[in-house]
Amino acid sequence: MKKELGAANCLYPMPVTLVGALVDGKPNYITIAYVGIIDHGHVSLAMGKVHYTNDGIRENGTFSINLPSTSMVKEADYCGLVSGRKADKGALFETFFGVLETAPMIAGCPVNMECRLAQTIDMPRHDVFVGEVVASYCDEEVASENGVDFSKVDPILFAMYDKSYFRMGERFADAWSVGKALM
Amino acid sequence: MKKELGAANCLYPMPVTLVGALVDGKPNYITIAYVGIIDHGHVSLAMGKVHYTNDGIRENGTFSINLPSTSMVKEADYCGLVSGRKADKGALFETFFGVLETAPMIAGCPVNMECRLAQTIDMPRHDVFVGEVVASYCDEEVASENGVDFSKVDPILFAMYDKSYFRMGERFADAWSVGKALM
Repeated sequence: MKKELGAANCLYPMPVTLVGALVDGKPNYITIAYVGIIDHGHVSLAMGKVHYTNDGIRENGTFSINLPSTSMVKEADYCGLVSGRKADKGALFETFFGVLETAPMIAGCPVNMECRLAQTIDMPRHDVFVGEVVASYCDEEVASENGVDFSKVDPILFAMYDKSYFRMGERFADAWSVGKALM
Repeated sequence: MKKELGAANCLYPMPVTLVGALVDGKPNYITIAYVGIIDHGHVSLAMGKVHYTNDGIRENGTFSINLPSTSMVKEADYCGLVSGRKADKGALFETFFGVLETAPMIAGCPVNMECRLAQTIDMPRHDVFVGEVVASYCDEEVASENGVDFSKVDPILFAMYDKSYFRMGERFADAWSVGKALM
């Protein structure tokens, strides 16, 4: 039996990210879980137009996406509660820079991507920034032979309902494989 | 110590969805994990241009997003392995329709959304369909007072590296709350 929910966005859970940008030359970070994959080399961030960070992304044409682990949940949540206009959120973290030189990244996050702004989709209340992934980094401890072992990243997952942060569970099946049983 | 990964998309895990559309009047379903949230009322799907389902989405201007639970992992994976040109994937599931009448949904999936095509972003190898969520549904068993209790949905999460399907873990913190400790 189905319950009708109205026009409710139910595309969850989504990974919690800390988005980094230079604003007035200083590193700032904001929590964003309205994210997406646009194609193999592009990602999207939906950022409320009111945010301080948006100007920095437009100004530099660059930003970073950092994946905090569950041990950083207080910092990750805090960066979504407080505006960079009022608090120096850059001071919370050790920042490093990569090839773009203007996309501050958080050393304490196990996974980092630096992106070049490729396109902005103008929605009524959000700037949707589409970024080309230019370079990515991960802690040695979470690296696998061909990339990132997400079972070691311990990311934070977000669902809007009940304002929830979830852990990731165990790996339980192989993609492009387990379905062959039905062929 | 950071390891350099090159221009690697690391925005994972993402929820695995079964996207439904009528193609030549028949329900078809395809597995998509390149998804995103565009704003409160819009979602995105990045679908390789080669896919059969894309024509149905363009033709009707509608599609559905269904969240399979881990018990459906074989069916979910299968729908990404086999083209609707060669197999009748609609026959795998019980289909129902909602207000849009042309967005087939999977009764066996605990969460369903029907969407109206709002915009298409043309990427070199992908059609990125932006959909306005028109109506959503969930099984009574996973409903919460104000929406969906994702701890009961048991969704499938995808990470590209090692071609992995993960379970969701437990709820461990409150969003817009746990970070207040740092204020």
